[in-house]
Amino acid sequence: MVVVMAPGATQEDIDAVVALVRTAGGDAFVSRGVSRTIIGLIGDVPDFERLNLGGRRGVLEVVRISVPYKLVSREHHPQRSVIRVGGVPIGPDTLTVIAGPCAVETPEQTLEAALMARAAGASLLRGGAFKPRTSPYAFQGLGVEGLRILADVRAETGLPIVTEVIEPGAVELVASYVDMLQIGTRNAQNFALLQAAGDAGLPVLLKRGFSSTIEEWLMAAEYIAQRGNLDIVLCERGIRTFEKATRNTLDIAAVPVAQRLSHLPIIVDPSHSGGRRELVVPLTRAAIAVGADGVIVDVHPRPEEALCDGPQALSGPDIAEIADTAAVLAPLMGRTLTMPAPAAATIA
Amino acid sequence: MVVVMAPGATQEDIDAVVALVRTAGGDAFVSRGVSRTIIGLIGDVPDFERLNLGGRRGVLEVVRISVPYKLVSREHHPQRSVIRVGGVPIGPDTLTVIAGPCAVETPEQTLEAALMARAAGASLLRGGAFKPRTSPYAFQGLGVEGLRILADVRAETGLPIVTEVIEPGAVELVASYVDMLQIGTRNAQNFALLQAAGDAGLPVLLKRGFSSTIEEWLMAAEYIAQRGNLDIVLCERGIRTFEKATRNTLDIAAVPVAQRLSHLPIIVDPSHSGGRRELVVPLTRAAIAVGADGVIVDVHPRPEEALCDGPQALSGPDIAEIADTAAVLAPLMGRTLTMPAPAAATIA
Amino acid sequence: MVVVMAPGATQEDIDAVVALVRTAGGDAFVSRGVSRTIIGLIGDVPDFERLNLGGRRGVLEVVRISVPYKLVSREHHPQRSVIRVGGVPIGPDTLTVIAGPCAVETPEQTLEAALMARAAGASLLRGGAFKPRTSPYAFQGLGVEGLRILADVRAETGLPIVTEVIEPGAVELVASYVDMLQIGTRNAQNFALLQAAGDAGLPVLLKRGFSSTIEEWLMAAEYIAQRGNLDIVLCERGIRTFEKATRNTLDIAAVPVAQRLSHLPIIVDPSHSGGRRELVVPLTRAAIAVGADGVIVDVHPRPEEALCDGPQALSGPDIAEIADTAAVLAPLMGRTLTMPAPAAATIA
Amino acid sequence: MVVVMAPGATQEDIDAVVALVRTAGGDAFVSRGVSRTIIGLIGDVPDFERLNLGGRRGVLEVVRISVPYKLVSREHHPQRSVIRVGGVPIGPDTLTVIAGPCAVETPEQTLEAALMARAAGASLLRGGAFKPRTSPYAFQGLGVEGLRILADVRAETGLPIVTEVIEPGAVELVASYVDMLQIGTRNAQNFALLQAAGDAGLPVLLKRGFSSTIEEWLMAAEYIAQRGNLDIVLCERGIRTFEKATRNTLDIAAVPVAQRLSHLPIIVDPSHSGGRRELVVPLTRAAIAVGADGVIVDVHPRPEEALCDGPQALSGPDIAEIADTAAVLAPLMGRTLTMPAPAAATIA
Repeated sequence: MVVVMAPGATQEDIDAVVALVRTAGGDAFVSRGVSRTIIGLIGDVPDFERLNLGGRRGVLEVVRISVPYKLVSREHHPQRSVIRVGGVPIGPDTLTVIAGPCAVETPEQTLEAALMARAAGASLLRGGAFKPRTSPYAFQGLGVEGLRILADVRAETGLPIVTEVIEPGAVELVASYVDMLQIGTRNAQNFALLQAAGDAGLPVLLKRGFSSTIEEWLMAAEYIAQRGNLDIVLCERGIRTFEKATRNTLDIAAVPVAQRLSHLPIIVDPSHSGGRRELVVPLTRAAIAVGADGVIVDVHPRPEEALCDGPQALSGPDIAEIADTAAVLAPLMGRTLTMPAPAAATIA
Repeated sequence: MVVVMAPGATQEDIDAVVALVRTAGGDAFVSRGVSRTIIGLIGDVPDFERLNLGGRRGVLEVVRISVPYKLVSREHHPQRSVIRVGGVPIGPDTLTVIAGPCAVETPEQTLEAALMARAAGASLLRGGAFKPRTSPYAFQGLGVEGLRILADVRAETGLPIVTEVIEPGAVELVASYVDMLQIGTRNAQNFALLQAAGDAGLPVLLKRGFSSTIEEWLMAAEYIAQRGNLDIVLCERGIRTFEKATRNTLDIAAVPVAQRLSHLPIIVDPSHSGGRRELVVPLTRAAIAVGADGVIVDVHPRPEEALCDGPQALSGPDIAEIADTAAVLAPLMGRTLTMPAPAAATIA
Repeated sequence: MVVVMAPGATQEDIDAVVALVRTAGGDAFVSRGVSRTIIGLIGDVPDFERLNLGGRRGVLEVVRISVPYKLVSREHHPQRSVIRVGGVPIGPDTLTVIAGPCAVETPEQTLEAALMARAAGASLLRGGAFKPRTSPYAFQGLGVEGLRILADVRAETGLPIVTEVIEPGAVELVASYVDMLQIGTRNAQNFALLQAAGDAGLPVLLKRGFSSTIEEWLMAAEYIAQRGNLDIVLCERGIRTFEKATRNTLDIAAVPVAQRLSHLPIIVDPSHSGGRRELVVPLTRAAIAVGADGVIVDVHPRPEEALCDGPQALSGPDIAEIADTAAVLAPLMGRTLTMPAPAAATIA
Repeated sequence: MVVVMAPGATQEDIDAVVALVRTAGGDAFVSRGVSRTIIGLIGDVPDFERLNLGGRRGVLEVVRISVPYKLVSREHHPQRSVIRVGGVPIGPDTLTVIAGPCAVETPEQTLEAALMARAAGASLLRGGAFKPRTSPYAFQGLGVEGLRILADVRAETGLPIVTEVIEPGAVELVASYVDMLQIGTRNAQNFALLQAAGDAGLPVLLKRGFSSTIEEWLMAAEYIAQRGNLDIVLCERGIRTFEKATRNTLDIAAVPVAQRLSHLPIIVDPSHSGGRRELVVPLTRAAIAVGADGVIVDVHPRPEEALCDGPQALSGPDIAEIADTAAVLAPLMGRTLTMPAPAAATIA
């Protein structure tokens, strides 16, 4: 950290900052210029968090230089991590496809979607039982009934399950049914939920907030990690910008940027970022080519009847194209495509 | 709503959309152009929400024209509402100042801040007991102990209390101590929390999400309203933009825009939007002049020691300037400044 | 400036940066921490601009602390400036209203609009002869014929003229007709145009780019100032954000922020920021209350027939409300409302 | 287009809109709902541009549905275009790499960079002679001397030249030296420059404005096309968002989106979007994989001495990686890598 003193700051002001930093276990070096003085701070940013340096007399600005997170940082843990979900790895040597319906609607639709997911090369099934919707009048998910359906489909297909949890009080229940908890974009700074997920003993798929900076996203991961759970997979899913031609703007560069800052795996959601079916395949290719550790795509047997996000769900020939794309690009990126569990069910 | 059909849409596709709309109780009018056909929908948007029209065969785009909320809309309730918090009105005929410390730290600091709030013309005291912080290493609030301090300070000063609640499971506890629940910007789409607040039987101060559109903000209010609670006060507190010279960009136009769309009162938070002490007074003037129903400002007896947001807390002569500004501008805006409760405590 | 060295930077790398800074006439102080070293630079930022410090071996990041502009900065010129346009002052002690039609269409419409402007309290007339339009199919302005009309209306009304210039080659021509050149939002970084305007010997009204940071806006002003022309008035007119309920998001806080950074006057354009007629009066009130040195508003005798931006042009009773607002709020802000020149024409 | 009438609109208001549309050669269909009436317009959007429908009495809103550009649209020209620059194709069947130094500094540096460009697989050389810089104190390019150097290097290497032009008055001069004109991001709405480039008789590389929507970008292209020049290549180079971890946010989805809307080729600039050397290779891979028709990358023989954008310039082993990436991915995308002209010079 660098503390920039205001032009009129006194020696006393400067000494006070230095003293404060030392009480927090850090050290401080003063550089005096003609028009202003700066103080370089040495130590851990978290230790300085409570000092309120920006509010001290004579301080113009505090410029942070080190990252404010620790457990999820690559400085703290230089090797990139591998996270296992029901045995399926997500990490630097593999390419993992996750697929499934945005919302669980019926047992039949979910099973069909799971078989489509496997056909798309997916080794994990994602399906929503609790849906956070902008409108209270929109379909909110089947709830516990949806969890039961997911568990049944896992039994039939062998695909481990990822599902979203939207409130701290429901974490234990949801965790009792599934293999990985998803924290959605609207809950990117729902700290109580992040902490509850951290306590649940399951891997967590942490979507980036649609307006979170990469740093805030990693801070959200730090909330989970602080509870002793480092089984976190980051998911870039598009950010909110002035451009409205797509639902969100996929921040494709966030993948290599986050991979340099954090040891956690990072996957990409081409469905929610583009919001349009015809963009899913090209964005999947881009995600794999940029170096993502996986992708998560919406599929639905009958998108035109989907109760949630039908316009972005894949179906038909696009399914095979996702599988082909993953199979062809994975080795070029030095990765092995994670194989789906052997089929345990077919549609009669 | 208007459904725009793709250039290649067939008559069958068009008929299917019309039929679907009619099953939902609406009506549909078809306009055929040379290169494309559009279908005008008549009926309530919420009724059309589940039809997934955008996913239907031959549909290019669905353009919504009416607002998607009902209970909080001005179409539904043309008169602007007055909300009462511990007897204090917030509405179109008054100007209400809310003030207090970002975080409750000690009984002494809270009492001092409350007296400063009253000196600033405030009739309601805001103080944080549960603090949602970007960093897990930052001060997270005193919790229940903070609520007790707030209740004691209310007893001493007569000022009703507003405090933030950050998880559904804590709503009942918090509601047992205070007069108004605040939902913070990071929880703008924490729907479980919105619903729990809607059930609590207390007025709710709903901050705009830092990246919520005005429409999403009103949809969040609709979640509360749906639970039978229309005692909602909206609070504009700045949005996230590319400009980093201020903490957030105060969207001052959101005040008149939201007042035309919704009957709910709307106040402005000049402290969190600017994020800098020297901006609070000018932004307070702008907020009152644009027509806000109130303002909410951070005050702290010793900002340089504040455990949260010290750089934006007012102290000293600025306190009187807020009071003067409110007293002078309120009548020009055709409003009466809401008076604080009579003093029940002084600092010896 | 602070140069942050990468964790693996060598002593040689550090010495190279220090040496480079000294060759540019600056000085450098090294602070060594456990995990990284920072180098504080003393000297003028512009002197360091060509050193390409960010590209040097071992450099992780360069953090700028001082402002990169000089002539327009308040550090360089602590007193706030007064700019005179055809004798009319714009500065810290006055409130100046500029008004007129977005586009000059006919002599009659322009004269009528000028009389409306004066009725709105305006002492300067703004009208567009060259219109930069997003669509090549939209009305592009009357060109030279428009300049002649403006000059005639000035002769009749006594109101000095502000008009936009959109290319360097036209500056001399436009300057020969009017009293102040306007640089529009789309030309915020059209450096050739800024330089040509700087050479023209007339005051310049510099609109903020719709996506310019405040710093970039002041750098644009610096381009003009470098040509020896410090008669610059800044104009905040709204920025582009994710919110689409208004045409742009008026960054009201930019007024006090820019006034602290620069000695130049700053006015607000409530018409282009809101983009809707009903927002112009409230945003004008907010602009004056926040401390702007003036406002610039669109007026049109028949907005429904306007060839440009009709939906935001004021007419009828709103005209008097602008005048009243300015008259009432100016003294509260310690300002004198600049009076229009005496009437030299009336409509028979 | 759809005209939405306000709730209180009269029959007369509706008839007036219909009549107006018909005078412009279009047709209008009225759909009456319970609370509002909508009017569907049939005809060309450009024909309706001057009608100012939004300002008419009783009109609430005008919703545009068709695209506002014609010549560059895919509706107007369904086949994707191939543009030739000095004989080098850019289009749907090829992958074209453009490379070179951000700024021309010396003949030696430019020749070295050109050879690096060819080693990177480039068939076109880009170099800047006129540099638009945010700061007037930064290096502004060598001007005409730079153009001469570029022409000499073309003679030596056989690589056709792309260079930026920054003002209308310089177009003729620049065009006399080079093979393709570049319009930079800051001039995205410099309409006089776009028109001058359209008149110059050379292909134009049109960078997206850093805050232009895709639609505004295509409208800028339409300005060029209107002058009879359809030899336009679009270039996505990152947009401005709240995220500051990268210089800009590469809008990777803009490639497939623009390819569906326009027949013009579209390439990607991974250097300016990321702004950091280590992001150039991954973003290049993503660009090719998403389906771009080419990429344009900064190279420099000694990035640490570059006078412009050194931190993002490639050098050393990254050069070969760009060439390899292009060679491997092009055939997977069904494209042929455009081959550089045969070497006409080597470094002794």
